[in-house]
Amino acid sequence: MDLEQIIQATKKQMPLSRWEHTLRVRDMALELAEQQAEIQSHQVELAAILHDYCKFWSDEQLVAWIQEKSLPEELLLYNKEIWHGPVGAEVAREKWGVLEEDVLNAIRYHTTGRPNMSVLEKIIFLADYIEPGRQFPGIDEIRKWAKLDLDQALLQSLENTIMFLIRRKQKVYPLTFITRNYYLDRVKENSKS
Amino acid sequence: MDLEQIIQATKKQMPLSRWEHTLRVRDMALELAEQQAEIQSHQVELAAILHDYCKFWSDEQLVAWIQEKSLPEELLLYNKEIWHGPVGAEVAREKWGVLEEDVLNAIRYHTTGRPNMSVLEKIIFLADYIEPGRQFPGIDEIRKWAKLDLDQALLQSLENTIMFLIRRKQKVYPLTFITRNYYLDRVKENSKS
Repeated sequence: MDLEQIIQATKKQMPLSRWEHTLRVRDMALELAEQQAEIQSHQVELAAILHDYCKFWSDEQLVAWIQEKSLPEELLLYNKEIWHGPVGAEVAREKWGVLEEDVLNAIRYHTTGRPNMSVLEKIIFLADYIEPGRQFPGIDEIRKWAKLDLDQALLQSLENTIMFLIRRKQKVYPLTFITRNYYLDRVKENSKS
Repeated sequence: MDLEQIIQATKKQMPLSRWEHTLRVRDMALELAEQQAEIQSHQVELAAILHDYCKFWSDEQLVAWIQEKSLPEELLLYNKEIWHGPVGAEVAREKWGVLEEDVLNAIRYHTTGRPNMSVLEKIIFLADYIEPGRQFPGIDEIRKWAKLDLDQALLQSLENTIMFLIRRKQKVYPLTFITRNYYLDRVKENSKS
């Protein structure tokens, strides 16, 4: 697979504003990755470029992939905002031949999170959350933590998302709650050591 | 079983302030029950009196019951505030011969809630939440809904609890957020019909 080709194809999947978001996520992810050992920038770039590949696909197209690829049917009971991650990972593998499981997981879990995320998964999740185009109360605190402690930044992002969804009277995907509980424990353990 | 005997025994399990709370929960539950058809006041009274029977038991005693009665081991991974409900239901059956499953469930789920609660379960959950001794932001709104729409009152109580726990940096028991998602759907469906 050729990155330039993937970039051109991804750009065509979305409006310009979303493509610009994608580029900011890439830049932010590369910046966060600089502080992490053992992380390959080509993986960061690939995951960041592809993370929203299916964001503007129709509901019908997303549902068809969820069913054909035997993704969790439970997804369909929740906000459709969470469909494009799992589907995006399948598309990255099938259409673009991405085989690195870590890159696929970073795409797959970038909206919901999951317990025990890899460094790459955390970086893509957080870069998407705090890229310079985002603005919401508390984001500066999360931006600060993202440079100091990825787990703490993740915890605050997840809590922020859950409270936002509750206030907006939207359902919260169980994995998001489970991930928040997980990182709460993790942050408490980290602070002991 | 004799209710007077149960009342005297329950009173001995807790400090006076908690016993006074228990009596307020009973009165509030009986008041909420007045507006509901097909609810037996002796069941309301029994569940209300027994709901906090184990609230002041030691952690060791609660853990022993959870293990001996094969209650979900998962309980032990979460805040111990949620242990006394499931244990209380076992004690009510074993020690006080309560056989009515609806009363046992009202005791069992009074802290966490669960999807598809019975009217009795909802009344005990809510009476515990809004009895006149409770005071927190938003409680007047929940008190109002408890007289008009039990599902709406439950939804607001669960959301209030989840936000409280998140702000307090405490884990949220999965059943609680599953129940919140469930009642969000239910309230939306109710509003359509």
